[in-house]
Amino acid sequence: MIQAGIVGATGYTGVELLRLLSGHPEVEVIAVSSDSEAGQPVADVHPHLRAGVDLAYIPHQQLYETECEVVFFAAPNGTAMQQVPALLEQGRRVIDLAADFRLRDPQVWESHYQMPHACPELLEEAVYGLPELNRAQVSQARLVANPGCYPTAVILGLLPLLESAAVDLDHLVADAKSGISGAGRQASTPLLMSEAMENFRAYGVHRHRHGPEIAQALGQAAGGTVQLTFTPHVAPMIRGILATLYAWTELSGEAIQELYEQRYDAEPFVDVMPPESLPQTKNVRGSNVCRIALHPGEGKPLIVLSAIDNLIKGAAGQAIQNMNLMFGLSEQAGLPQIALPA
Amino acid sequence: MIQAGIVGATGYTGVELLRLLSGHPEVEVIAVSSDSEAGQPVADVHPHLRAGVDLAYIPHQQLYETECEVVFFAAPNGTAMQQVPALLEQGRRVIDLAADFRLRDPQVWESHYQMPHACPELLEEAVYGLPELNRAQVSQARLVANPGCYPTAVILGLLPLLESAAVDLDHLVADAKSGISGAGRQASTPLLMSEAMENFRAYGVHRHRHGPEIAQALGQAAGGTVQLTFTPHVAPMIRGILATLYAWTELSGEAIQELYEQRYDAEPFVDVMPPESLPQTKNVRGSNVCRIALHPGEGKPLIVLSAIDNLIKGAAGQAIQNMNLMFGLSEQAGLPQIALPA
Amino acid sequence: MIQAGIVGATGYTGVELLRLLSGHPEVEVIAVSSDSEAGQPVADVHPHLRAGVDLAYIPHQQLYETECEVVFFAAPNGTAMQQVPALLEQGRRVIDLAADFRLRDPQVWESHYQMPHACPELLEEAVYGLPELNRAQVSQARLVANPGCYPTAVILGLLPLLESAAVDLDHLVADAKSGISGAGRQASTPLLMSEAMENFRAYGVHRHRHGPEIAQALGQAAGGTVQLTFTPHVAPMIRGILATLYAWTELSGEAIQELYEQRYDAEPFVDVMPPESLPQTKNVRGSNVCRIALHPGEGKPLIVLSAIDNLIKGAAGQAIQNMNLMFGLSEQAGLPQIALPA
Amino acid sequence: MIQAGIVGATGYTGVELLRLLSGHPEVEVIAVSSDSEAGQPVADVHPHLRAGVDLAYIPHQQLYETECEVVFFAAPNGTAMQQVPALLEQGRRVIDLAADFRLRDPQVWESHYQMPHACPELLEEAVYGLPELNRAQVSQARLVANPGCYPTAVILGLLPLLESAAVDLDHLVADAKSGISGAGRQASTPLLMSEAMENFRAYGVHRHRHGPEIAQALGQAAGGTVQLTFTPHVAPMIRGILATLYAWTELSGEAIQELYEQRYDAEPFVDVMPPESLPQTKNVRGSNVCRIALHPGEGKPLIVLSAIDNLIKGAAGQAIQNMNLMFGLSEQAGLPQIALPA
Repeated sequence: MIQAGIVGATGYTGVELLRLLSGHPEVEVIAVSSDSEAGQPVADVHPHLRAGVDLAYIPHQQLYETECEVVFFAAPNGTAMQQVPALLEQGRRVIDLAADFRLRDPQVWESHYQMPHACPELLEEAVYGLPELNRAQVSQARLVANPGCYPTAVILGLLPLLESAAVDLDHLVADAKSGISGAGRQASTPLLMSEAMENFRAYGVHRHRHGPEIAQALGQAAGGTVQLTFTPHVAPMIRGILATLYAWTELSGEAIQELYEQRYDAEPFVDVMPPESLPQTKNVRGSNVCRIALHPGEGKPLIVLSAIDNLIKGAAGQAIQNMNLMFGLSEQAGLPQIALPA
Repeated sequence: MIQAGIVGATGYTGVELLRLLSGHPEVEVIAVSSDSEAGQPVADVHPHLRAGVDLAYIPHQQLYETECEVVFFAAPNGTAMQQVPALLEQGRRVIDLAADFRLRDPQVWESHYQMPHACPELLEEAVYGLPELNRAQVSQARLVANPGCYPTAVILGLLPLLESAAVDLDHLVADAKSGISGAGRQASTPLLMSEAMENFRAYGVHRHRHGPEIAQALGQAAGGTVQLTFTPHVAPMIRGILATLYAWTELSGEAIQELYEQRYDAEPFVDVMPPESLPQTKNVRGSNVCRIALHPGEGKPLIVLSAIDNLIKGAAGQAIQNMNLMFGLSEQAGLPQIALPA
Repeated sequence: MIQAGIVGATGYTGVELLRLLSGHPEVEVIAVSSDSEAGQPVADVHPHLRAGVDLAYIPHQQLYETECEVVFFAAPNGTAMQQVPALLEQGRRVIDLAADFRLRDPQVWESHYQMPHACPELLEEAVYGLPELNRAQVSQARLVANPGCYPTAVILGLLPLLESAAVDLDHLVADAKSGISGAGRQASTPLLMSEAMENFRAYGVHRHRHGPEIAQALGQAAGGTVQLTFTPHVAPMIRGILATLYAWTELSGEAIQELYEQRYDAEPFVDVMPPESLPQTKNVRGSNVCRIALHPGEGKPLIVLSAIDNLIKGAAGQAIQNMNLMFGLSEQAGLPQIALPA
Repeated sequence: MIQAGIVGATGYTGVELLRLLSGHPEVEVIAVSSDSEAGQPVADVHPHLRAGVDLAYIPHQQLYETECEVVFFAAPNGTAMQQVPALLEQGRRVIDLAADFRLRDPQVWESHYQMPHACPELLEEAVYGLPELNRAQVSQARLVANPGCYPTAVILGLLPLLESAAVDLDHLVADAKSGISGAGRQASTPLLMSEAMENFRAYGVHRHRHGPEIAQALGQAAGGTVQLTFTPHVAPMIRGILATLYAWTELSGEAIQELYEQRYDAEPFVDVMPPESLPQTKNVRGSNVCRIALHPGEGKPLIVLSAIDNLIKGAAGQAIQNMNLMFGLSEQAGLPQIALPA
């Protein structure tokens, strides 16, 4: 069994990682850390894990001293970069679910995350952990930057098109809608149920940090600079992202459908649905699957609909998918294909 | 007191009209009809109206024989057009909340609504009842076609820009999100709470009937043909529409803000919010107000956010606003400005 | 116009009071206070009040120095009692929406609220502001203790029965379900939408502070000590309380129905529904009405269902009802009868 | 592999059974039937099963002719009883998730279900499939009547107490709250999201069919007649039941806690939580676990809180638990212990 540790396992992403790993046939989570909950049994803080998880939280520092072969960071931005150089030196693998290693350019990173980067020399080595884009590199990686939730839905929805070079790179629009769990488990007024239920709103218009992350990956795919307008919204639900993507292209509907089906043919976690399909977030809920449907426009833009569970394919599930690749396991080990609709 | 009748007052739109009119200082609803509920007291079917509404449903035909000065149709498409010629002949005014009189061109209408039009000769006379666009004509109208909910949010969000002629007419995108009450009160599986809650989905992609209605009004404003891509979505909430509108323009942020503020300066029910604002559907819930915020893009498209209550400014409230104009009343009579957040 | 001030107008109760009073024909709100938001325009903090409320928050202390004839306290427990003696001395009326003056016995109060009472000598004078129980006293009051939301629903549901003396006082059960707005607008993890939506839970079992408040009022009605078991729950919705009340009685179903109808015959805000009715929270949402239905048991206990909007009849609306009585206005002034279902 | 068939696999219960069985290590579902969807691939009707379930619906009659060793009926009441005699004769086992075999007394059954029973002679043989009550009989059964969702939560919550004989049998109250999926997947107005969200209501007061089912099982446990008042409610959520149970008893808090812990000590799917715990429906969501907490009253009644997922421990999961017992498999095979909070 691979011994794993999770730094910051009190938020939604970390707890979901713990839930999924507790059913993984080849991994044992031996330590979970939280500075605020240190000493508390996990199952007291998260009773849905009673009878399944027997660990108690330990302080972060103590976790770094365990024998974990792989350390997952489900902690705030800026946490992992403080520890990663030492952990790598000790021969461990690291998967960061936060943003510390997602951008290649340290200056871009620092301007978006508003802090100095603690180990910019590792940005080059870190692999952006979207297996559908970088599978080979992930398999060899010591350090994986797990993608953001929005970027996962948007990049998978546009990747084949951008690789095909048959798209107008100046008018791409990604209008994305997320459940509120994407905002984390912090006590904050706008996240209260009385504020957020029966309500719909946009936020971070023209400014969300996932913008440069998406642009970087799509630029890699397109082999050039991509002008993408990304608008995130909060829908009154807990889980799920639906990204509605607009792209002007000369390709025919048949050509687009074929392009996507071929590109994702061997992918275990990308489902290109039949023409005219309408993916719904409930149909990916609880699974590691991204479902995509293509709606060509006949004079109007192609509309791509891309749906994921933001906490699974958009976070914890993708991290396990990356771990499976890093350790030479079956890529699908421990990862659900079937959704549990709400 | 003006005597009013409501045809089809069992669905969400008709009941909301009844609720609002029961507090209107100058109108008395003297008859409400429903073929399926005929004979039932309204308050038995809709107990929130107990102690406020004393009417019982009568059959449609019986309503047409009452002394109503104004008849509201809150019935399915194809209902009003059967009766309107006779009602107009009797000297009554008609406001149709369905789609029968929204499109000018009978052929376009018939191809989208899949039935022959019963009185195409009235399409020319019917006024499209968006007061912000056609106030003078509404004031003189015998027959008003009350706009659809999506069109209200989208047209108000783009109107000043299209009138200014400073926008790329080939790349307009309207990504709209609605509460499920927009789908009506019919018993249908996809509208069940077990299906629709904790779920987000697009529908009618490239095919929704509100597309041509929006294009017609925007074309009128722009003085030419407009290529707009309109995508409706259902959010897991009951009321509210947020439209996220993308428009490529050369205008500066300041110019755009000023353009909108001037255009809507005298409008009682359009609120151009300060720069950087983020309208939320809960902040218009229960009111007849459309709130708009402008997010210029600096090299990226202008993003306009437009929020309404789909049942009020998007239906019943706007119908009353039109009635107020038609009868020379204060435009704001009986219409709430303050929202009741969920 | 009566000049009113609201202390603590940032929470759900205070904002609702402001919303309702802004439509009241005889009252002008001249000051609203918040120590944390002092200086901010109300409409910036609560955009649903844009175009309806032109005030800015001032510090509490500054409000006490205005010319308000009536001061509403919508602030945390322990706030009003510090100011009330001085305000009364200045000849003002006070309505406290918190708990400071709800219990008669200072020792009971102090043991439940865990602080010394600042003016126990006023507990005797303060009137418990349930108009259906204490209308005459409210009309003469300088100081009104506005009832809690749960107590309003439970007491109105049991009052006629307890006054009739035909009930087993040892086996009363009140199982109450509330929307989450009852917990207030504080940033706290259990109130997050990600925690509370699609979830149902009990809390405060055998310990909720509303227990003694209910017992005191019911004891007054019964003329003796009442053993009531009260269990509050949070339902995944924003507004509304449904109390399911169990009472063993020898009275027949007809007798009970008649008892309630007679008791509440003249009450403008209590609706005794016909036999077999099932009140729903959505049918009182946004109104000041309590709807009650009676289900006699034939060998089993009587079940009373009692529904209110916790923020209106359970808080802000009832406060206005009390104010109307205190100032000799129509009891219904400014108070909605018709609900706005979600 | 055991070959299984599911009759009526289009509703929530049948689909959940299919989802869970598709991950069961010892069972293969070889046929699923639906008269209305016959010919349709399951994954087209329920896209969350894409890539996991490859079956198409067949007509009921055709399913009866397959080689299934075990037939699950997830069809409307009155379906199974038509087929069960023939299926048993052929040597198959049957688990009925509907109500056909839940009541012992054919007259009681017929009066509650308003139809003649097709095979009353089998009511004696049918085992009421609550493993915690009838494990040995289930293991030997040919025909199992899977309990209703409410009865599962209520009976498990009261069982140890009633077996102890230390409870007042005349004043038992079960106030139960369910998500709306319990009402099934039929298109019906009160189940629409626009009607049921942001709403709370009781229904079936003093009349719900689960009443006699609960009374029968509790009477068996108590060895006598039990007077239980059962009130079901719909909460605005999809899944989950919380039952709040009131019982007057002389036992001390410690004695009650010990009683329950001992009674359920060996039960894999009943979790007696520590004193003062508050089970929440989200903490059992997606799992086959019933969580119970005990709140003794010191002069007031004992309050038992009992939480299940109505579609799993209350339906599909319990059916699999029964099947595991009938076929001598591990009782926990294929059944999740860890919940997936919404």
